[in-house]
Amino acid sequence: MIKKINHIGIAVNSIEDAVKLYTDVLGLEVKGIEIIAEQKAKTAIIAVGETKIELIESTDPEGAIARHIERRGEGLHHLALEVSDIQSALETLKEKGILLVDEEPRTGVENSKIAFLHPKGTKALIEIVEPRE
Amino acid sequence: MIKKINHIGIAVNSIEDAVKLYTDVLGLEVKGIEIIAEQKAKTAIIAVGETKIELIESTDPEGAIARHIERRGEGLHHLALEVSDIQSALETLKEKGILLVDEEPRTGVENSKIAFLHPKGTKALIEIVEPRE
Repeated sequence: MIKKINHIGIAVNSIEDAVKLYTDVLGLEVKGIEIIAEQKAKTAIIAVGETKIELIESTDPEGAIARHIERRGEGLHHLALEVSDIQSALETLKEKGILLVDEEPRTGVENSKIAFLHPKGTKALIEIVEPRE
Repeated sequence: MIKKINHIGIAVNSIEDAVKLYTDVLGLEVKGIEIIAEQKAKTAIIAVGETKIELIESTDPEGAIARHIERRGEGLHHLALEVSDIQSALETLKEKGILLVDEEPRTGVENSKIAFLHPKGTKALIEIVEPRE
């Protein structure tokens, strides 16, 4: 079902500061900066091998990322696993008793289809992603 | 400097429970289970594409993983970035002003050489890894 790790999401207060670390210090490259209105967040996408690091800054003090930082500080936020068919993956997960945050896919970065699984059943916050062709 | 994401570390109370999710539900495969005495932890290594998920259970209530779970609950613990020469990577990072937890490499899973960077400067807990040839 899982093809690879699509990305790791890191919640940060300032994308500008965080990008400096990943580019100037670690020598990685920013592929793009995107506003994800639905998630009240701005993200910088950094390519690393076959996967990506997604730095996420909240655009709204009431957004999920702002609340996460308030509770837990900046840091690793979610692990995104790539599937080829998100609809069938969600059905399989439900059949196997995994609680879902999103019963239906919504739009993520780069026009992907995404859904979050409930961390209660998965130990960590896991997103599944079907990239846009 | 960075070649790829070597693994994502997830702190869990029970490797046995967590492994069930990643294998039975998500269809991934465990490559091995290892005790890392130095880190007072037991880990299960799960291959995903070119990278790995490392489930980490503490073997000691005073260990770093046990303390992390006590403070923040189960969840994403660290992001491990792969380099080909850890000694030279640590020197470069120090020159660029990055605080290190480990000034000298120590032994990680699969006999790799690892060092943790101080999360103060990096937003998230980052490990750098030179795999064993």
